[in-house]
Amino acid sequence: MKRVLVTGAAGFIGRFTLAPLATRGFEVHAADLRRPEGISADAAFVYHQADLLAPGAPLELIKTVVPTHLLHLAWYSTPGLYWNASENLGFLAASVELLRGFHQVEGRRAVIIGSCAEYDWEHGYCTEGVTPLAPSTLYGAAKDALRRVTDRYASGNGLSWAWARPFFLYGPHEHPKRLVASLITALLARQPAPMSHGRQIRDLMHVADVGAALAALLDSTVQGPVNIASGGPISLAAVANQIVELTGGADLLRPGAISAPASDPPLVVGNPRRLNEEVGFKPRFDLEAGLADTVEWWRAQKREVR
Amino acid sequence: MKRVLVTGAAGFIGRFTLAPLATRGFEVHAADLRRPEGISADAAFVYHQADLLAPGAPLELIKTVVPTHLLHLAWYSTPGLYWNASENLGFLAASVELLRGFHQVEGRRAVIIGSCAEYDWEHGYCTEGVTPLAPSTLYGAAKDALRRVTDRYASGNGLSWAWARPFFLYGPHEHPKRLVASLITALLARQPAPMSHGRQIRDLMHVADVGAALAALLDSTVQGPVNIASGGPISLAAVANQIVELTGGADLLRPGAISAPASDPPLVVGNPRRLNEEVGFKPRFDLEAGLADTVEWWRAQKREVR
Repeated sequence: MKRVLVTGAAGFIGRFTLAPLATRGFEVHAADLRRPEGISADAAFVYHQADLLAPGAPLELIKTVVPTHLLHLAWYSTPGLYWNASENLGFLAASVELLRGFHQVEGRRAVIIGSCAEYDWEHGYCTEGVTPLAPSTLYGAAKDALRRVTDRYASGNGLSWAWARPFFLYGPHEHPKRLVASLITALLARQPAPMSHGRQIRDLMHVADVGAALAALLDSTVQGPVNIASGGPISLAAVANQIVELTGGADLLRPGAISAPASDPPLVVGNPRRLNEEVGFKPRFDLEAGLADTVEWWRAQKREVR
Repeated sequence: MKRVLVTGAAGFIGRFTLAPLATRGFEVHAADLRRPEGISADAAFVYHQADLLAPGAPLELIKTVVPTHLLHLAWYSTPGLYWNASENLGFLAASVELLRGFHQVEGRRAVIIGSCAEYDWEHGYCTEGVTPLAPSTLYGAAKDALRRVTDRYASGNGLSWAWARPFFLYGPHEHPKRLVASLITALLARQPAPMSHGRQIRDLMHVADVGAALAALLDSTVQGPVNIASGGPISLAAVANQIVELTGGADLLRPGAISAPASDPPLVVGNPRRLNEEVGFKPRFDLEAGLADTVEWWRAQKREVR
């Protein structure tokens, strides 16, 4: 029997892990502040209302579910605020308690979500175990701290674990302030779509592929950090142009209307070798198909609002 | 007004911080599971019974005291067990909550106790910001993780902070299983005093000096990691011989009776430059005087037992 506890299950990534986990034979227990919505009907799961920041809540949740597997996604993620919010400390503490509880109930394997923000972005191309780690934000530092202590705790206690580092995501249910969602919603509404200069090279993955990759990683025996990345470099300007091809409104795009911070790195791309070869996962969407899926979802949202 | 909250105040180090803090004009609030004992009478303090591992306890303690200064010493420290106990995770989580609460009540300056075990001991001579960090235990990893996240949180929130790294301590109230205490108690009782080969070079400081150094560090504006070290290398065999000069019983010393682990580093010594020059602290005891003071304390304990 494989019973997984998914924290942050109603979040942008979390909701896309539930169906792939169920498909892989997991009994899925989904925990979050609110019930996950918009999940395909064949993804059976048990919902647990939980606020991991409440004192004692992580251990209580673990003892309620008694999972064999843990997929820990819950974190503070309000766009613009999460980089340096003190909630990062709260989630670090809650994560540590969750991990400790998971081992207490004899959990077998944990996958915890980290971030490409752990890497020193001066290096641009990020490979696990090679590229130096130098988080420049409290968010990155808290994830980095959690990974370090998890590594030592897991190796000392015979706990199987992996650490997922997603890069740049887009897809249905994305927060409307994030880049891809903001461009699509503006263009579909025939309004000006501001963005930065767009020369930044990034690594994008559709959130449904991220969810499926996490399920595959949890269901594997791969240990340690694993980039959840496509490995395909693309400029944000090229992303915007692909969106325009789907939505129209080339005249509405406003590159340069938002100033990019001086610290914005020119290139951040993940090496996907571990994910592709060791986990054996390949994404379903290329960027063109992924953006088409995403534009279609936003169009359906607009129709529903009417 | 300077009001300091000392956690772990009844511990080996904690009890030696209370008098120096009071002397420096701090209103001292001492928190621990039990009331600190054996404190000199002129060290006024308010005692708070607190178990930092209880859910919600760190924030509650902070809100009760509302300190301007924090000296955070509490940690799991049972000899032989603390290196890899899961309590390290509990104290990491509690420490993070304490730090967050301290900033919430507008605390001004925090000193948190780390460990020389954060350093890569292959390098032997340890200098802050120079010697690589590579903790090989869960204890070291948890301290390392706490320091990393504290550094980022403090710099992002204008919080003054320092990170104290004690080396090897001895003195009154030491746990009888630790080296100096075990040798003194055996020799005073005229019993065999086993130890390892004794060729390890270490850096020892009397715990009263460690306590005074922490008070000085808290009362300074020095930022970041600071070794709490004497800088004076001495072999454990030489330490044992100095003890024998005070206690007698050279024939009872059993070097080699305890096997040293293969990983036992030949030399671990702290560079004391930051402590001496930036903090302006000099220890009161040299090793000879410190051991004499310690032997005298153990003798007094024996008399009391009679």
